[in-house]
Amino acid sequence: MSQNSTDRTDGDLRNTGLSLRHDREWDYELDRITEAVAERDAEKVGLQFPEGLKRRGPAVADDLRQLLPDGVSVMLSGQPCYGACDLDTYLMRRTDVFVHFGHSPMKESDNIIYVPLFSNVDVDPIVEQALGEELAAPEVDPDVGLVTTAQHMNKFDEMREHLEGEGYTVHTRRGDERLTHEGQVLGCNYASADVDADQMLYVGGGKFHPLGLAMEHPDKHVVIADPVNNSVSVADPDQFMKQRYATVHKAMDAEEWGVIFCTKIGQGRWDQAQEIVDDNDSAYLITMDEVTPDRLRNFGLDAYVNTGCPRITTDDGPQFHSPMLTPGEYRIAIGEKPLDELSFDTFHGTW
Amino acid sequence: MSQNSTDRTDGDLRNTGLSLRHDREWDYELDRITEAVAERDAEKVGLQFPEGLKRRGPAVADDLRQLLPDGVSVMLSGQPCYGACDLDTYLMRRTDVFVHFGHSPMKESDNIIYVPLFSNVDVDPIVEQALGEELAAPEVDPDVGLVTTAQHMNKFDEMREHLEGEGYTVHTRRGDERLTHEGQVLGCNYASADVDADQMLYVGGGKFHPLGLAMEHPDKHVVIADPVNNSVSVADPDQFMKQRYATVHKAMDAEEWGVIFCTKIGQGRWDQAQEIVDDNDSAYLITMDEVTPDRLRNFGLDAYVNTGCPRITTDDGPQFHSPMLTPGEYRIAIGEKPLDELSFDTFHGTW
Repeated sequence: MSQNSTDRTDGDLRNTGLSLRHDREWDYELDRITEAVAERDAEKVGLQFPEGLKRRGPAVADDLRQLLPDGVSVMLSGQPCYGACDLDTYLMRRTDVFVHFGHSPMKESDNIIYVPLFSNVDVDPIVEQALGEELAAPEVDPDVGLVTTAQHMNKFDEMREHLEGEGYTVHTRRGDERLTHEGQVLGCNYASADVDADQMLYVGGGKFHPLGLAMEHPDKHVVIADPVNNSVSVADPDQFMKQRYATVHKAMDAEEWGVIFCTKIGQGRWDQAQEIVDDNDSAYLITMDEVTPDRLRNFGLDAYVNTGCPRITTDDGPQFHSPMLTPGEYRIAIGEKPLDELSFDTFHGTW
Repeated sequence: MSQNSTDRTDGDLRNTGLSLRHDREWDYELDRITEAVAERDAEKVGLQFPEGLKRRGPAVADDLRQLLPDGVSVMLSGQPCYGACDLDTYLMRRTDVFVHFGHSPMKESDNIIYVPLFSNVDVDPIVEQALGEELAAPEVDPDVGLVTTAQHMNKFDEMREHLEGEGYTVHTRRGDERLTHEGQVLGCNYASADVDADQMLYVGGGKFHPLGLAMEHPDKHVVIADPVNNSVSVADPDQFMKQRYATVHKAMDAEEWGVIFCTKIGQGRWDQAQEIVDDNDSAYLITMDEVTPDRLRNFGLDAYVNTGCPRITTDDGPQFHSPMLTPGEYRIAIGEKPLDELSFDTFHGTW
């Protein structure tokens, strides 16, 4: 495709070299927040941003303070935030209006406002590129499944129409009750990809979600159309799976196990944790919110099973000082299941 | 003093080369815990250890599981724990009996058992050495103030008698309501050193407490008798104070400030945080539990004021990517107070 600028529509960031410095002009929905403050006569407003947008927090607080009556306090959450599970329940309980930016709802409550922060980046050019490069043509395979993240949900109909316009039959579904939107995926849930298509188009930033999708659905061809980093590729979970097999093998020698119960909203799998501890006299239940290498190191156990976020286990796993397994991998490591049952750990249902 | 082993009493770890590998045989008071479980018909028991003792957690859980009826679950807290403020309120709320090891009470509650974990290390030899090396002889200055930490509180009378036997007048006090015991110091509270003596004897491990004491009381000669690392020295806060002056100078150029309100029990100084934000349009209130460099980095502000634990500010300060000040230092940095009013930040009162 020509790089002549006249060929590109507004918002097409491909090959401009500016993609990451471009201000995507998020809509913080300040009007919705100020209305909620007025309605509830709120005195305290809490704002929580994902890590990548924390830097915008002070400017958003400034804008809000100008719009809000004198005497209303605006507070920023300093807790780590990588997803909807990281809801700062402390700040939520202590503010009259609590705004969680950038994720779709995990827990509903009267005083929470979820501001999705839809991206304004144009998705058409990268979908076009994906069609030309990695998706099978409609004459070869007319069925394609379509998924995206909360951030690009506002463009979901555009994506679908684009594909249909090319002659594809587009398969989508809402997944399960953990998901807010049709076609939405979470790092821990790919139920929306349970569709009758051998090829999937994932439109969104990064490889975090499509790798999870490919691990959960190893039979599907997962094409990544990334409008943020402007690249088209195919998800290849092989390296990840090799790392998982190696970790499971290493854990087979473990005598003492730490079983992590994560206290975050949306991550508590109590029955799984309890069952492991009940069945294994050398397993110890450990409760924590952030699961980090530093926190586990001082326990000095041989291996850990994480019943919380599976992405901590798989993506951050190599940073831990002892092997860290998902509950399914633990069953393999202790010999209860054969090695070929290794699969990706997902979360279903809500908190 | 001779190194002949016959000169040494039981528990004298000086110069044995084994001081840090020596198992001090902590008393975990398992009988008190099992009694409480029986009394309350408890089904869930939570255990929280300080970082340095987390490794003992699984063994203590094992012992307890043997003593407790079948069906009682024992859980370990995986939250960071460096002091009484780090009470794991999540696990506390979700267990029938919650045991906090190694610190004296910060918050009392029906289901909390505080197990102090007194050290069995003998303090007499190191007190003797301190008398010979760094304390002024009673003929020169008969007055000496005596302080220690929760860990060595069980030997406080021994220390006092030892000094009195040498002819000193020993000055002690309970400090304020933040402290449980006469003569006890916390990392953030040295009110027990407000005694009528120019020289202080601190008996305890490490330099953390005596440095705080010397910064809070720069007029006093603070002798450290460390029975754990077996060393006698004099607290020298000069280097610390220089670091503080340098940090304050660096923060004088800051335009945007983050004001940290720490959500931990015992660390909430809301009025101080609120006052700073009210008076400075470029100050933003940030709430968090653990105050770490990683959590602040993403906000990208020019400087921070920490209204939470002063030891994070002074001891961990150099690890932060932007200057981190105590509330008093902030007043100096913005020109409200002269530089020579720089003093150590302490906490009084309870949570």
